[in-house]
Amino acid sequence: MSNIAQVAATMKLESPVMAATSLEMRNDALAGIRDALLAHKEQIFAANAADLAAAEESGVAAPIVKRLKFNEEKLQGVCDGIGDLIGLPDPVGRLQLRRELDEGLVLERRAVPIGVIGVIFEARPDALVQISTLCLKSGNCAILKGGSETMRTNKALFEVIHAAAVEAGLPESCLHQVEAREEIGELLACDESVDLLIPRGSNAFVRYIMDNTRIPVMGHADGICHVYVDRDADVQKAVAVVVDAKTQYVAVCNAVETLLVDRAGAETLVPALVDALKAAGVEVRGDAEVQALADCVPATDEDWDTEYLSLVISVKVVGGVDEAIEHINKHGSHHTDAIVTENAQTAARFQQLVDSAGVYWNCSTRFADGFRYGFGAEVGISTSKLHARGPVGLDGLVTYKYWLAGNAHVVADYASGAKSFHFRDL
Amino acid sequence: MSNIAQVAATMKLESPVMAATSLEMRNDALAGIRDALLAHKEQIFAANAADLAAAEESGVAAPIVKRLKFNEEKLQGVCDGIGDLIGLPDPVGRLQLRRELDEGLVLERRAVPIGVIGVIFEARPDALVQISTLCLKSGNCAILKGGSETMRTNKALFEVIHAAAVEAGLPESCLHQVEAREEIGELLACDESVDLLIPRGSNAFVRYIMDNTRIPVMGHADGICHVYVDRDADVQKAVAVVVDAKTQYVAVCNAVETLLVDRAGAETLVPALVDALKAAGVEVRGDAEVQALADCVPATDEDWDTEYLSLVISVKVVGGVDEAIEHINKHGSHHTDAIVTENAQTAARFQQLVDSAGVYWNCSTRFADGFRYGFGAEVGISTSKLHARGPVGLDGLVTYKYWLAGNAHVVADYASGAKSFHFRDL
Repeated sequence: MSNIAQVAATMKLESPVMAATSLEMRNDALAGIRDALLAHKEQIFAANAADLAAAEESGVAAPIVKRLKFNEEKLQGVCDGIGDLIGLPDPVGRLQLRRELDEGLVLERRAVPIGVIGVIFEARPDALVQISTLCLKSGNCAILKGGSETMRTNKALFEVIHAAAVEAGLPESCLHQVEAREEIGELLACDESVDLLIPRGSNAFVRYIMDNTRIPVMGHADGICHVYVDRDADVQKAVAVVVDAKTQYVAVCNAVETLLVDRAGAETLVPALVDALKAAGVEVRGDAEVQALADCVPATDEDWDTEYLSLVISVKVVGGVDEAIEHINKHGSHHTDAIVTENAQTAARFQQLVDSAGVYWNCSTRFADGFRYGFGAEVGISTSKLHARGPVGLDGLVTYKYWLAGNAHVVADYASGAKSFHFRDL
Repeated sequence: MSNIAQVAATMKLESPVMAATSLEMRNDALAGIRDALLAHKEQIFAANAADLAAAEESGVAAPIVKRLKFNEEKLQGVCDGIGDLIGLPDPVGRLQLRRELDEGLVLERRAVPIGVIGVIFEARPDALVQISTLCLKSGNCAILKGGSETMRTNKALFEVIHAAAVEAGLPESCLHQVEAREEIGELLACDESVDLLIPRGSNAFVRYIMDNTRIPVMGHADGICHVYVDRDADVQKAVAVVVDAKTQYVAVCNAVETLLVDRAGAETLVPALVDALKAAGVEVRGDAEVQALADCVPATDEDWDTEYLSLVISVKVVGGVDEAIEHINKHGSHHTDAIVTENAQTAARFQQLVDSAGVYWNCSTRFADGFRYGFGAEVGISTSKLHARGPVGLDGLVTYKYWLAGNAHVVADYASGAKSFHFRDL
């Protein structure tokens, strides 16, 4: 048995103990983690400085180096986040159903932690803190593997977090950190012990994970988001929404990649939108109709299925809301898609028929985010339809189980007709 | 593109239309299906007679032939089931969250159908009716593949059901039947179009499906259920629960396979339980301690991990509730496990720490069933922890999506601090 398999098996056996911890103990652990992070900040910053030096030495690009940084400001951010998390209600134990099946036979359904969660995430030290505290708050055990570019910072943060969690009374095996990249393969084989994997990172990486494990995976492989600007759109609003959705932060899954414009308004809309996008530094790739109305790069068929994650947008003219819906359901990634229109009926049709986790009306796709939804924080965004869809916060980290209590009730009595169910919700 | 891939792709594109149908139309379709089944019963019975003749000719065992039968009684059963289903509330559209993120920016989360569901099920004609009507009630499109032993009955039932559904106004592609076994492989490859697979059948079959598709799978591979009889158990209650859980219907996943007995009460409990089981025709396989207290077959290590699905039970003496919990979490299949005790505190500990979909106190594991939980019917029982756990009824066939409506709200305003969220639940 590999080291990871042993760790996971132990964690699995201890996970019911973790699941049974009180909210008070879990919140105490979070408060302890916050205090410990502040108390040990110098050694964490020192580890981060070593990571940054190594990254610069090996020629990592400046924008990426920025993400690796863990400084006073990032520390304050994660500590504020922990404070918010402490204030959130307990996701565990919530009663979802209470039903008397028959005299003296009572069924209850309550939320319980998922158990053992594996999270593989990018080299961002603040993500390690967010993910581990979300898992602990929701009563889960977690195996964490962060990007190796911040391995020194990860190690320093993890040691502080784990020690504080155990100090507060949580089980020793509530958290484990995987350091070597080779161990990811071992983790993927732990389908007997790990209940859920959450991979974050590039599309190729997430697909690789999905294809190489029996463990259920929560995540998204693509983020091809659309804005459809309808004939009844207000031009100014359309420009504001599209420019924000494309440019506010390009390297994220909820940024827009394809703009669809209603033919019935295209003569006004296309030039206004293309001009605004170009003024914001965006490369515009248009289909033939767009090219006829504005100066742009010709789009190819491939563009409709491409996630640029950069200052590039594809633009297409469509014959109205139904064609927009069809295009989105066919080419999109079922993440987040928006319509701009003043026509409430058209908006309702779009929002009803677009098969995505988020269907937006007159607002930017960039709102698709756990913090912006008021979930406190998120472990990721799911484009799967099962279990959790869209931004996943604490609620996505619990499942439920059924409690049934009787007094020597047996099924034979119901099969014979001697007794019958009466199903009364209590 | 294979035939199934084309069907699935069309279904995927039409699934939002199906999802948008009114409850009235879906209920009308169910009523129409019930009427059509009754009106066409002679041709259905004739098809079934041909299936039964073929089964007998090819030497299928009598108990299995019984399951293939579709007669007046089975017809009445499925028609009653459709009546119950019509009466159940709409699982689609239910509001789960409504929150004002900021002035004029309102988030809503509502239940929506999953989309396209593939169901592969055993040769039981009544299952075809139950599964198709559950899918239609929940606004889903479905691809159905029933066991080939009843292919003529399946075909007759499907034609009647599909025609009645379309007659009521549901989209043509709401349902599709797969007839050839070779097409299962093609179905497994449709991960772009099929949102969920529900395989029912043998463990080996379900595992095969799980290992050969990227589509999320809901189901259970094993049903190793336990009853733990505690030192504080009432002997009569223990006997009643254990005998029912083992013998009421042996060929099902919620029947008990292993009995655990508390050492502190073993001298009285073991003989009473073993005698009662043997009197009911059960082969008892005991560990050394059980063998010392009652006449039985010696159990081997393999027995603790075996799903007999027959009149065999393994019995082990354990050192109390904690050892029982550890044994169950290690050897069980996280399906349904019960404790028999008069001690409420011990029961609570067991129910809290056993990591199974159902945790029962003083009642038979055989209650783990959608009908007995009051769900109307079930598409299956899930031992997965994600999405749906335990018996899966209509609620397990829906997901949700997020609606967000604003007035040209952009994220840049919140990033800059010009605006801030206030998160007010409405």
